[in-house]
This record gives sequence, C-alpha cells and structure tokens, in this order.
Amino acid sequence: MVFSSKLLEDAVAEFSKLPGVGKKTALRMVLQLLKMDKESVNSFTTAVARMRNEIVFCKYCHNIADTDVCTICVNSSRNRLQICVVENIRDVIAIESTQQYNGLYHLLGGILSPLDGIGPEHLNIDSLYQRVKNDEVKELIMALSPTIEGDTTVYYIAKQMSGLPVTITTIARGIAFGGELEYADEMTLARSIAKRLPIENYVSINGKK
Amino acid sequence: MVFSSKLLEDAVAEFSKLPGVGKKTALRMVLQLLKMDKESVNSFTTAVARMRNEIVFCKYCHNIADTDVCTICVNSSRNRLQICVVENIRDVIAIESTQQYNGLYHLLGGILSPLDGIGPEHLNIDSLYQRVKNDEVKELIMALSPTIEGDTTVYYIAKQMSGLPVTITTIARGIAFGGELEYADEMTLARSIAKRLPIENYVSINGKK
Repeated sequence: MVFSSKLLEDAVAEFSKLPGVGKKTALRMVLQLLKMDKESVNSFTTAVARMRNEIVFCKYCHNIADTDVCTICVNSSRNRLQICVVENIRDVIAIESTQQYNGLYHLLGGILSPLDGIGPEHLNIDSLYQRVKNDEVKELIMALSPTIEGDTTVYYIAKQMSGLPVTITTIARGIAFGGELEYADEMTLARSIAKRLPIENYVSINGKK
Repeated sequence: MVFSSKLLEDAVAEFSKLPGVGKKTALRMVLQLLKMDKESVNSFTTAVARMRNEIVFCKYCHNIADTDVCTICVNSSRNRLQICVVENIRDVIAIESTQQYNGLYHLLGGILSPLDGIGPEHLNIDSLYQRVKNDEVKELIMALSPTIEGDTTVYYIAKQMSGLPVTITTIARGIAFGGELEYADEMTLARSIAKRLPIENYVSINGKK
C-alpha cells in the first residue's frame, strides 16, 4: 500500500497490529476516525490510554477491575460458596452475559500447555488453592476449553485440591442448542450419548421444568 | 455484554464505533491492547491523535497530506498532463499500489447522489475546473464507481469541461482478471462484449505485447 501521508501510514500501521486487522481494514478504520470530529477521536484515544494505564487486576480472582477488588468479588449478593474457574476475562463476560450464574470467578490467565511452555507456575493456581483453603468455598466449577490442554488443567487442579473439602465439577458438554446433529464432531456426539440425561433434566433447563 | 470494569467497557464502546466492528471484535482488540506494553499502546494512541489533529488536505488535489501540498502533487517526476479523477483517498491508494499510473489525481470527495442530497456544490468540481483551465492538463481520466451515480458524475464533469482543451476518458470496464465469466453480472458482460478489443490490444496489456 502506497500512502501520500506519513501520519496516515503510521496510524494504519498501528491499527494493523490488532488481531484480525489487515492493512485494508486498518485503513477503513483510520479513515472513519478521520471523518469523526476531533472531540470524538479524543475520547477514543483517551479511553484506550486510560484503559491501558489504569486497569488493574482483582487481587482475589485476577479479573480486570478498576480498583484492587473487582465488582464481582465485592458484590455481597453473590454466592461465595461457588467459584467458576475460567481461562480469561472473555469467558467471564460470556458467562455473566447468560445471567444464570451468581457465584464468584477465578481467572487462571491461561491453561496448561507444555508445548507452549506454559506450566502451573505461569497460571493463577496457587492463589486459587489459597482461596479454597481459607475461604468458605464449597464448589469449584471448571469452565475450561474442551481440549486436551483444558482437560489436563482440570485434572491438575483437581489433584492439587485433593484433601480440601471442595467439590469439583465441570460444565456440561454436548450438542449446542440450535446445533445440528450431523455437523457435530464425533467426540462431542460420542460424549453426549455417553452422558445422556433423563428427560426430566432436559425439560428443567432454564428452571422451566 | 456485562463488564466488571468501566474502563474496559468505555474502551470497547469506543472501538465499537469503528466500521465493521461489533462488540465481540471490539473486546478482542481492547484485550490485545491490554496485553501490549504501555509504550506500544502509547504509540498507538499518539499515532491516532496526531493523524486526526495534524493531517491536512492537499490544496490542489484534496488528497490527504502532511503539509498543504501532497507528496504526489509536489513530485516533479509525475506527469502533469494527466489528472485521474477519483472519489476518495482509498481509490488513490488502490491506483498508486498498481504502480502503473504516473499522473496527478483529483479527489472529488464523493459522487453525485441526489437521493443522498449530494449535489455538485458538495464535491471538489470547481477546483478541478480551475486546475484544467489554469494548468497544463491534457487528459482527465475518470476513475469512478461503475454505478448510475458514478456515470452521472462523469457526464456532469464532462459537460462542465466542454469548451476546455482537455480529453476526457474513463477507465476500462470488463471482466476482471481471474473473474469467472459465469459469475459476471449481465451489465458487465454485455458491456465487455460490446466494447470488445482486437486481440493485439489484449496481448499488449502490461507492455508485454
């Protein structure tokens, strides 16, 4: 791409660093910003700069927060007996958006992946152990990716927690709502048949029973 | 989407204003910025702010520029006898990237579109007339979208220039290289048959003859 402006070229280059953004998309975004009034662009850059410079991580669950304890951990109406263990903030947002879970979270910051050099010491497993040991936690709900790495992480954490009075569960795997059976992968289909549910359980989803 | 951080939410909301960026994409971009070190994010916001605040438009061709005359208009090795008339900066970048055109440009800033309330007074047509009248221009190459609005704009400009010693041409329309005949629209196919070329012309594309 040939630019007639260094300022434009620099801005496009910066946008191209974002995930899934190629040069053409970056150019479209930058030209859109150029069309916007200066105050709007100023609020854009200010929001980005503040986000990067002021965001902190919750000292309990490692979630993104504006203060040292996140809004979920500080919320006294949440169920403190349950901790949902997830990989990252995107999982928290996805689960929170369902509005079906009222417990706490714990963000591992990744999953075990020996091939990528990610061992237990790189994840927030120690702090999880301390929370289970010192707080009133009764259940750890493992909500990790259904991959070999995810399963390995679940088993590793379960082993670490052995001896502590906590129940470990994992979220249900199966055919997604709206998913067509014929397009499901073999592993999912095989598991969903093996772990089939009595029809009463099926009907009771969403508390409708 | 439910966020545990106002800072995060604000940044995601700002990114969502960009074209083709939904909430999920915006979140992915913001989390990527959060992973980057503070200097990189600082150079991102600085590049965007400078681009918006310092970019100017070339006083001759209305192209985006860092100074009041763009790098193309200031370049003495460009052919000043030709002006390629385009809609916007994206078209200039596309044509420059072919490295096949060595003339000047003129950016209309849009095309005539009565339905959207865009008339000749909203476009840079007067300044084009002045350039053709006062400079040594011999040819206007109209490189506008092959739509009714584009064609209308071409005819309007051609009419405005009548009386001036300038040749007006349009870029060739036809089946794109690599395009499959059966997927071409009827209008393009019909035009490309009507405007068929002797085989010598075809072979001479790219100067290979």
